[in-house]
Amino acid sequence: MQKTIAIIGAGLIGRSWAMVYARIGHEVALYDAFPEALDKSMLLLDDNLADLEANGLIDGASAVRSRIHRADTLEAALEGASWVQENALERLEVKRDLFTRMDAIAPPATIIASSTSAIPCHEITDGMAGAARMLVAHPANPPYLLPIVELSGADTTSAETLAGARTFLENAGMAVISINKPVKGFVLNRLQVALLTEAFKLIEDGVVSGADLDKTLKHGLGLRWSFMGPMETIDLNAPGGIRDYLERFGPAFEEIAREQTEFRPWTSEKYARLEQDRRTVMPASGLAERTTWRDRRLMALTRHKMDAAKEIGE
Amino acid sequence: MQKTIAIIGAGLIGRSWAMVYARIGHEVALYDAFPEALDKSMLLLDDNLADLEANGLIDGASAVRSRIHRADTLEAALEGASWVQENALERLEVKRDLFTRMDAIAPPATIIASSTSAIPCHEITDGMAGAARMLVAHPANPPYLLPIVELSGADTTSAETLAGARTFLENAGMAVISINKPVKGFVLNRLQVALLTEAFKLIEDGVVSGADLDKTLKHGLGLRWSFMGPMETIDLNAPGGIRDYLERFGPAFEEIAREQTEFRPWTSEKYARLEQDRRTVMPASGLAERTTWRDRRLMALTRHKMDAAKEIGE
Repeated sequence: MQKTIAIIGAGLIGRSWAMVYARIGHEVALYDAFPEALDKSMLLLDDNLADLEANGLIDGASAVRSRIHRADTLEAALEGASWVQENALERLEVKRDLFTRMDAIAPPATIIASSTSAIPCHEITDGMAGAARMLVAHPANPPYLLPIVELSGADTTSAETLAGARTFLENAGMAVISINKPVKGFVLNRLQVALLTEAFKLIEDGVVSGADLDKTLKHGLGLRWSFMGPMETIDLNAPGGIRDYLERFGPAFEEIAREQTEFRPWTSEKYARLEQDRRTVMPASGLAERTTWRDRRLMALTRHKMDAAKEIGE
Repeated sequence: MQKTIAIIGAGLIGRSWAMVYARIGHEVALYDAFPEALDKSMLLLDDNLADLEANGLIDGASAVRSRIHRADTLEAALEGASWVQENALERLEVKRDLFTRMDAIAPPATIIASSTSAIPCHEITDGMAGAARMLVAHPANPPYLLPIVELSGADTTSAETLAGARTFLENAGMAVISINKPVKGFVLNRLQVALLTEAFKLIEDGVVSGADLDKTLKHGLGLRWSFMGPMETIDLNAPGGIRDYLERFGPAFEEIAREQTEFRPWTSEKYARLEQDRRTVMPASGLAERTTWRDRRLMALTRHKMDAAKEIGE
């Protein structure tokens, strides 16, 4: 069923959401407080959609493009919208101001979702008249290539809003997870930080180079995780399942876990050293081209996963 | 150049190594101290090789099979071998006994590698006459589907042995990383433990279900890691590269990292709870079938990565 969607904030995240919703048939209004940012975003859409079509991920870039409309005011963007996706700056006061204004404009049935990666829902929505229809729908970057969405509400978010949001996002082809308690950084970034913290230590201590560490994921750990995740991986890695696995490896793993409780500050000196390590693998001048490569690889991987799910199951 | 390889220990790891070496043309002798284990392993080879052929990962299962020979004694297995891959029980005294015997039998130029996942090289080889030609080559499970190998020596391992081992394994199609200092669990398992520790906490605290946590990897984090690894991922996730990324997200990530220093024991109660969570997703009766599914998905992913590397680059 076709809906009208408002995207507020037209950077990479907003532009990506516009494609996510338009490619399954919704009409999308894209708005940004900075008209130049909006101009740029509308132009970039053509490249992104052409890439998606070339990789067999959408039929007809022009049809998708025709459903994405430029909105020049917040009011125009929200007109008739059943879903609003906010992607403004990651600053609490900016988001609260925007949510207050949107709450006054949008019809009562409209769901208002923030893409924030760090601010708990209640901090944004506390005290607002329409708090029941507000929630956080945090995507990965960029949402048109990575389907994961972390959904979380405040205590004031209604069960109806949470259920409606899940259905809406799943119908849009996203993989939705529920964050059931307020937690810093939600789940995706907490898992990423846990792994990065250990990665940084191993590189800084000279145990392994950054290039070799990346190999460990791309030719090892990351392969199974890319279609199963870590829990199913260990469940299938011992004949008796996860408990059997943990009984075998738990004692050794617990010793490692104990070593990993050491805290090391995240300093600019650390960042400089890590950058130096990366630049031995790839010069800064190669970043832009490699980002295009990454997106192509992601699209090919998405295509592969769709085919494999059809042939082998999921 | 065809070589003769000895595989000592014919469980899943040993059998996998036999296929890795035979599929690129080496002659392989497979030995196990338990004749029944060896019988079983020789039979299972046929199924595994048929699967590899069906997935386009080898040409001619029967030709590969014909290069894998049953050896009835340790002496017979090591005859003429230029590389020995040991895959016995993960017990120090078993490995030291075996290495001492192999050191006496094998010609001086033979490299002797252990597949151990946990025992530092020097603990196995200390005091042995041929310590210079001994090292650890730790694969992921199973090595015929996951190319990563963690290479590490003791202080007594010669530079020639390390360099020769790397060349040999890379020629066999493996992705070799160097572990430059002795560290518990090497790199792959340390990274896995760091992520699992946080995953277990999030599930136990009711923040997220195990099923949703797996989704976070398979529809998010794991996708980029499966062809780039975590360091390149963050290097490409901000316009100015890794340093730019860390300056943007470092303050928030440091707060998360500080929370993650809490240690929780790995207890059988924890294992029981985690098993209970997994069994809501899949009954124990489904494990065997799902393991076959996993291997097929891994083979299809390997095929995809070979194609993508050819078309888009690597």
